[in-house]
Amino acid sequence: MPELRQDFATKEWVIIATERAKRPEDFVKERSEPDRLPERDDKCPFCPGNERMTPEETYALRNGSGPNEPGWLVRVVPNKFPALVPDSRPYRSRSGLYLRMKGVGFHEVVIETPRHDKCPATLTEDEMTGVVSVYKQRYSELNRNPTNELILIFRNQGKQAGTSLIHPHSQIVATPIVPPAVRRTLYEAERFYDAMGRCVHCEIVNYELRVQERVVMDEPDFVVLVPYAAQVPFELTIIPKFHQASFGEIPDDKIGPFARVLWTTLRKLYYGLKNPDYNFAIITAPHYSQGEPHAHWHLRIRPRLTTPAGFEMGTQIFINTSLPEENAHFLRQVSIPEPSSEQ
Amino acid sequence: MPELRQDFATKEWVIIATERAKRPEDFVKERSEPDRLPERDDKCPFCPGNERMTPEETYALRNGSGPNEPGWLVRVVPNKFPALVPDSRPYRSRSGLYLRMKGVGFHEVVIETPRHDKCPATLTEDEMTGVVSVYKQRYSELNRNPTNELILIFRNQGKQAGTSLIHPHSQIVATPIVPPAVRRTLYEAERFYDAMGRCVHCEIVNYELRVQERVVMDEPDFVVLVPYAAQVPFELTIIPKFHQASFGEIPDDKIGPFARVLWTTLRKLYYGLKNPDYNFAIITAPHYSQGEPHAHWHLRIRPRLTTPAGFEMGTQIFINTSLPEENAHFLRQVSIPEPSSEQ
Repeated sequence: MPELRQDFATKEWVIIATERAKRPEDFVKERSEPDRLPERDDKCPFCPGNERMTPEETYALRNGSGPNEPGWLVRVVPNKFPALVPDSRPYRSRSGLYLRMKGVGFHEVVIETPRHDKCPATLTEDEMTGVVSVYKQRYSELNRNPTNELILIFRNQGKQAGTSLIHPHSQIVATPIVPPAVRRTLYEAERFYDAMGRCVHCEIVNYELRVQERVVMDEPDFVVLVPYAAQVPFELTIIPKFHQASFGEIPDDKIGPFARVLWTTLRKLYYGLKNPDYNFAIITAPHYSQGEPHAHWHLRIRPRLTTPAGFEMGTQIFINTSLPEENAHFLRQVSIPEPSSEQ
Repeated sequence: MPELRQDFATKEWVIIATERAKRPEDFVKERSEPDRLPERDDKCPFCPGNERMTPEETYALRNGSGPNEPGWLVRVVPNKFPALVPDSRPYRSRSGLYLRMKGVGFHEVVIETPRHDKCPATLTEDEMTGVVSVYKQRYSELNRNPTNELILIFRNQGKQAGTSLIHPHSQIVATPIVPPAVRRTLYEAERFYDAMGRCVHCEIVNYELRVQERVVMDEPDFVVLVPYAAQVPFELTIIPKFHQASFGEIPDDKIGPFARVLWTTLRKLYYGLKNPDYNFAIITAPHYSQGEPHAHWHLRIRPRLTTPAGFEMGTQIFINTSLPEENAHFLRQVSIPEPSSEQ
């Protein structure tokens, strides 16, 4: 019998389609080996030596070299084809019946490594910590501008996940609006807080740690879960155990632990499911909700193992063809090699 | 400069990414010619002669033959791997902190033609009318059961759109819940109605017919639009000009005109964009909102020409890399062959 499950935070229902359910092993595809990538590609705008092929950098982690020169470890540049661009205040205007505004905002690319042939799962832990520290630097910088109402840090890994450039990179978009979907989730969290006097995400963390059925990793500061109402197979959430509304508030001494848990989780996917395509995004409070007792930032990972279709388009109800508890069990047991044994 | 546009009905914002915008012609891909399909495939459960490979049919249009025998024109069967299954009343239960319920509902497949090698664009107009009349018959039948709170008729065309079986078919899912996304859209429509005393979709139809910028087809009873805030390139909406909350209320004498406009629209996509993959869904009022003055059914088509990625996952804001007005202009000019010249 299929089962409908309600997400405790968002109130979205998901169909867990047991009649068509697959075993976790069924999602391990022998993916066609990509052409072995070169360490550096002359034509890649993100490779060292090609710094002039991007707009001027806004930030970089470097070992002493000058801006827009090789020698960087992580490099941030404005997106050459931005979805939103910096400009003056984003006033609304009418277009006949409709409302529109200039596409004001920021769209940055975080080039995660000089190496063309890497992905997060094959970086070192230190390199991942560098990337996450840059996330925080850029978040804090963009957050100074109150026009940036929402800042989204996200990553598209692989062609199925919508990436166009192979060189490892994440993206940051700052929007001048809070979209209805984000607002609605906050509203649900606020209602829970007003009724129960607790943050709904703190409540989920406490409950999941007690029952342990969907916990993939339990670290001192972070927990990795397959959500009870996961929308897609092997969906994962990394939630800080400490309450914090906005990613920008993460203390410096938690950056390393967060990078480590993200890195380990991506390595479990990489080794357990053989390098699946995925998206991840850091879900965080909008500018004016920072510090709120009901908002709680977290990182969501969605492997692209199935294709949402017309039913999802028409209802926003996802059909998940796997069991969250089985997914979590599978990922707990994935053993990842010692970094020293790679390369 | 990119532009943000707000959907007048749902209040969702969309980024029209002019900096990375493509011309309509850029979406016309030379798609790899699929293996020329046979008219009939021995192994296909939807081909005539293989009726025993599906569950027993729930309905069919036939020329005199008996149930589950060849000789049908359109055949409806329960999905063999259903997302939801018929059962007693869908009571909620607790699973610790969470809410769940049995996956009660209906999941049917509408086999649109005996011919394995067709798609809606290559059916005849009469065949399409048959399919749409079956949609209405099934909608009305499923709608008798008040447990079916929402009935979604949808179609997945092509692999990119999530289809698994090639033989032309649509699907109908009846859910025992109204999902939050549907509820929110209705709530926005209700607010508009309470303020203005008019249906928001009637208002959009009137405005679009006046300005004509995004109209693809203007028929006596239906209009085909590229929405002002289209979320993906070549998104299309077919809206009845007459106000009607639920698809189940469509009068019999409008089934032909609706089938004709749907058929012509899909043919424009087929010939104009060279057989793109797409999803379509009939967005209609839930069981208890039928007859409401603010709800207005319509059919939405989404070609799968781009890949929503981490930004869409994190914000539900879509980035559309094309201009709705250009898309509409392009589709208006697509000439489709006379049916007699095909085959």
